[in-house]
Amino acid sequence: MNDKTLRIQTLHGTAQEASTFVLSHFLTQNFTVSSKKDGSEVTTIDIEAELRVRSMLLDAFPEDGFLGEEHGEIKGTSGYRWVVDPIDGTASFARGVPLFGTLIGLELNSKPIAGVASLPALDETISAVLGEGIIYQGKAGSSMSTTSSLQEAMVCTTSYDYYKQTNSEPLYQKLVQASGMTRGWSDCYGYMLLCTGRVDAVVEPLLFPWDIIPWLPMIQESGGKYTEFLQGGIASNYNLHDPLCHALSYTT
Amino acid sequence: MNDKTLRIQTLHGTAQEASTFVLSHFLTQNFTVSSKKDGSEVTTIDIEAELRVRSMLLDAFPEDGFLGEEHGEIKGTSGYRWVVDPIDGTASFARGVPLFGTLIGLELNSKPIAGVASLPALDETISAVLGEGIIYQGKAGSSMSTTSSLQEAMVCTTSYDYYKQTNSEPLYQKLVQASGMTRGWSDCYGYMLLCTGRVDAVVEPLLFPWDIIPWLPMIQESGGKYTEFLQGGIASNYNLHDPLCHALSYTT
Repeated sequence: MNDKTLRIQTLHGTAQEASTFVLSHFLTQNFTVSSKKDGSEVTTIDIEAELRVRSMLLDAFPEDGFLGEEHGEIKGTSGYRWVVDPIDGTASFARGVPLFGTLIGLELNSKPIAGVASLPALDETISAVLGEGIIYQGKAGSSMSTTSSLQEAMVCTTSYDYYKQTNSEPLYQKLVQASGMTRGWSDCYGYMLLCTGRVDAVVEPLLFPWDIIPWLPMIQESGGKYTEFLQGGIASNYNLHDPLCHALSYTT
Repeated sequence: MNDKTLRIQTLHGTAQEASTFVLSHFLTQNFTVSSKKDGSEVTTIDIEAELRVRSMLLDAFPEDGFLGEEHGEIKGTSGYRWVVDPIDGTASFARGVPLFGTLIGLELNSKPIAGVASLPALDETISAVLGEGIIYQGKAGSSMSTTSSLQEAMVCTTSYDYYKQTNSEPLYQKLVQASGMTRGWSDCYGYMLLCTGRVDAVVEPLLFPWDIIPWLPMIQESGGKYTEFLQGGIASNYNLHDPLCHALSYTT
C-alpha cells in the first residue's frame, strides 16, 4: 500500500473513532464549557478529542504536519498535513442540538486531497478523495442539486452573527434578496446538506481553515464550486456559482 | 373517562400515527412538491396527512371544530377545536432535512389547553396539558433554561426571510444586536429546543395559528412566556422575556 492509501485508511478510522468518542459525551452532556478569546465556546471534549485525533494521526505518520482548532499547528516534513476540527458546531454540541460533526482533512503540499465529515448524532458520514468521488453513508456517489435559478435556491448561512462580526451586514441583505429561501442549518451541517443535494449553496463570511479544508475535496467531488468570500467562502452547486458570486460581489 | 381525558388520549394517538405516516414518506422522499399562493411549499403528504388527522379526530369527536394548515376551518359546536399542522417545516421535509414535525393542539372555548409536537426523524416527542406539566420522550418533566442575560442567550429565529416578508428588517438587526448568539434552527424545531432548555428564546415575526397554538400549553408548562410580536410572537424562558420584549419594542 502506498503512503496516500495508508493515510486515507487512517483518515476514515480516526474520524470514526473520534466521532464515536464525541457522541458518547454528547449523549450524556457530561463536560464543561468555557469561552475562548474570540468569544466562541469550547468544551473539555473539543480539547480531549483533538488530542486523541492528533495522537492517532501522528503516531501513525510522525513526519506529517497537523493543524487543529484547539491546539494550533505542528509543522511536518513529509508534505502531508492533517487539518482537524474535532467538534464543528460546538454551540450545538454544548446545547444538546445534534447538528455538530467531526471534520478531518488531508493536504499534500498545501492542496486538500481528502476529507471526511461525521455527524454522529444524525448518523451521517460523508467523505471524498480528490479524483475518486464521494462516499456517503458507506456507498459511492452523492451529488449536488442542479438548481440553476437563484430565486429557486435554498441557501444556508450559519448565522447573521458572523456577518455582524465581519461588518458585512449589507452583504447579508444582498444574499437574502437574491435567494429564494435562506436557512441557518448551521456549521458543518450546511455543507453536509450541500454535498448531498439537499440545499443549493452555503455562504459563510467567516471560516477557519479547519472549518473548510476538510470539505473542499467533498465540494469538488460532489460537483460543486468554492470561491473565497470575505474571511470565508461561497460554496454552491455548479450552476448557481457564478450568479451567486455576482450577486454578492462588492462592485454590484 | 371525561370528555377532556378522552380527547387527550386521542391527541396523543393521532399525533403518533400521523408522524409515523409522515416519517415513512420522508424516508423514501416519494411525493410531489408545489407552491401555494403565498409562495410557500406544500407536498402531497402535507395534504394527505392532514386529511387523515382530521378524519381520526372528527370521527371520534364529530361535534368538535378543526383548523388545519391545508384545508381550512370546520366550525364545531362542542367548544373544543383541534388545530393541526401535519408537517411544520415543509421546506425541511421536502429536502430531506430532519427538522420537521407534526403539531396538534386542542383548544377549549378558544383557549389552548393541550398540545403535542412529534419530530419523528429526530425521534423526539413533547407534549403538555395545561396545568399538568410537560411530557418529553415519554417522561414527565422538562423545563426551560434559566439564562437571564440577553448577552448570554441563544436565540432562534427560523429565517431572515420572514423579517423581509413582514418588512421588519430593523427588528432583526435589533434582535441580533441584543442577543449573545442567534441561530436558525428552524420552524417547530426551535420551539422543541426552547421547551427542553437547549435554547433560550424563539422570535418569529410571522406565524399562523397552526404553527403556534399547539406550542402554547408546552411553552407555559415548561416555564416560559409568550407575547405576540408583529404577525408572530416572542417565546422565551421566564427570566429573559421582559428584556427581550423591551429590546424588540417599537418604541426603543
